[in-house]
Amino acid sequence: MMIENQQGDSALTEQVIASFAGTPDARLRILMQSLVQHLHAFVREVEPTEAEWMGAIRFLTETGKMCDDLVRQEFILLSDTLGVSMLVDAINHRYATGATDTTVFGPFYIKGMPERAYGENMALTPGSPVVVRGRVLDTDGEPVAGAVLDVWQTAENGMYSGQDIAQPHGNLRGRYRSDSEGRYAITTILPVSYPIPTDGPVGRMLGATGRHPWRPAHLHFMIDAPGRRKLVTHLFDEDDQFLESDAVFGVKPSLMVAYRDRPANDELARQFKLAGPYREACYDFVLDRS
Amino acid sequence: MMIENQQGDSALTEQVIASFAGTPDARLRILMQSLVQHLHAFVREVEPTEAEWMGAIRFLTETGKMCDDLVRQEFILLSDTLGVSMLVDAINHRYATGATDTTVFGPFYIKGMPERAYGENMALTPGSPVVVRGRVLDTDGEPVAGAVLDVWQTAENGMYSGQDIAQPHGNLRGRYRSDSEGRYAITTILPVSYPIPTDGPVGRMLGATGRHPWRPAHLHFMIDAPGRRKLVTHLFDEDDQFLESDAVFGVKPSLMVAYRDRPANDELARQFKLAGPYREACYDFVLDRS
Repeated sequence: MMIENQQGDSALTEQVIASFAGTPDARLRILMQSLVQHLHAFVREVEPTEAEWMGAIRFLTETGKMCDDLVRQEFILLSDTLGVSMLVDAINHRYATGATDTTVFGPFYIKGMPERAYGENMALTPGSPVVVRGRVLDTDGEPVAGAVLDVWQTAENGMYSGQDIAQPHGNLRGRYRSDSEGRYAITTILPVSYPIPTDGPVGRMLGATGRHPWRPAHLHFMIDAPGRRKLVTHLFDEDDQFLESDAVFGVKPSLMVAYRDRPANDELARQFKLAGPYREACYDFVLDRS
Repeated sequence: MMIENQQGDSALTEQVIASFAGTPDARLRILMQSLVQHLHAFVREVEPTEAEWMGAIRFLTETGKMCDDLVRQEFILLSDTLGVSMLVDAINHRYATGATDTTVFGPFYIKGMPERAYGENMALTPGSPVVVRGRVLDTDGEPVAGAVLDVWQTAENGMYSGQDIAQPHGNLRGRYRSDSEGRYAITTILPVSYPIPTDGPVGRMLGATGRHPWRPAHLHFMIDAPGRRKLVTHLFDEDDQFLESDAVFGVKPSLMVAYRDRPANDELARQFKLAGPYREACYDFVLDRS
């Protein structure tokens, strides 16, 4: 009398899908019905025990509870570490137009950070001094003047200001503006590789699956200009040891920069008031038309 | 130059799946890799905008924040309303052995409720009096003595004690025990249909998709006896208007009971000290061997 009841399972799936048939918004109906189809397919494939399913419920609950209203967003970290954020990014930037590649936004952006002058130093905490500079161009190669470059990175301790309340307001964050020839310049410190937060459910998931939490060193950019599509991306240090195993799968070959040694007291050092030797990275961003 | 980059998307999925290859626990590896495969397939199918994906992140975050340590578990409600709880239930009870069908556990069970005598009234709030009685049997038709029947239901206001802090402790909850001939009897009030909680994200999801939140009237049972598989099920009122559209998809035809009118002061009424007319439902539970 051990008769399998799998037909019953798929009848259930059909019943749940049908329950969403009256959704007034057509897009929401598609989203919910597709979600049910794929979620049920996953459950049917792995056949979770009731204890495993309750474990999943607890994991999701703790992930929600870990989020605060500031910079800790554990569900974004989960989406990032499962590669979904990069997939959504890829889907929304599928067309090769010659514009700079995009990558994950991440959970640590803060709005309204200080406006900074050309070449201004945004580092209020110690580190190895660098200049990052280049141009903002359009896909015809023409300079984009007046683009706003919103930039953020961690301090040497691997934490962002806001996330690490010991750091001064606006540390390693700022809004730069491209000049009439599309040029931008940022004085800051060399970004470091850092672990994503591991004190929550996502950290436990990484630990349990033998994955490390490290991200290769990078600078975040969100670049906006009138008539252009907003660009969200990173610049990665091409020498980083974690480029092949970014915990959030954000690395693209086109987003590497080299930090080259520059001598003390050269013209650029004098212009940007840098004491001693430093490094320089150059990168031109290319914006799509919107 | 509008070249689709779909190959890039599936390379990403492969990269994420590969990142879990070193998971020490083989079962966890299977769960995570299957999750990534199906989650990415869902995302690739519906192609969410970045705003839609952030909407999903916010929905999940609010679902986690809605949970408390007592009886509100919004992720169980989500699992229930997406039919996943019933699917997990079906997967874990696939074999037709003649035992009573199972259904969802629900989020409102509380451990350690009062032990109650044969026929004791568990209703401390008003309602229409009923007796529910029958036997606990094994799959050979033999009576199971000493089975513990943990029973719970809502009050007439549609809320469970514990969920509704105005209700007295243990109201409409109790642990009964089958006698030497496997018989059990419960005096209580007629269960009512009730809406699942709609003041959270799951309620908003139901509202946005044109689904109602109602569950048909039912009594919850969790029945446990030595050497038997624990049975989690409901008994539904066969006259309920929501049997075809249970918000959590829990109804099975084998779990219906009829509440039949019984006259005041008959033998059963005298035995259980019922004043006035009442109703009676009869049901025999059948337990699997464990």
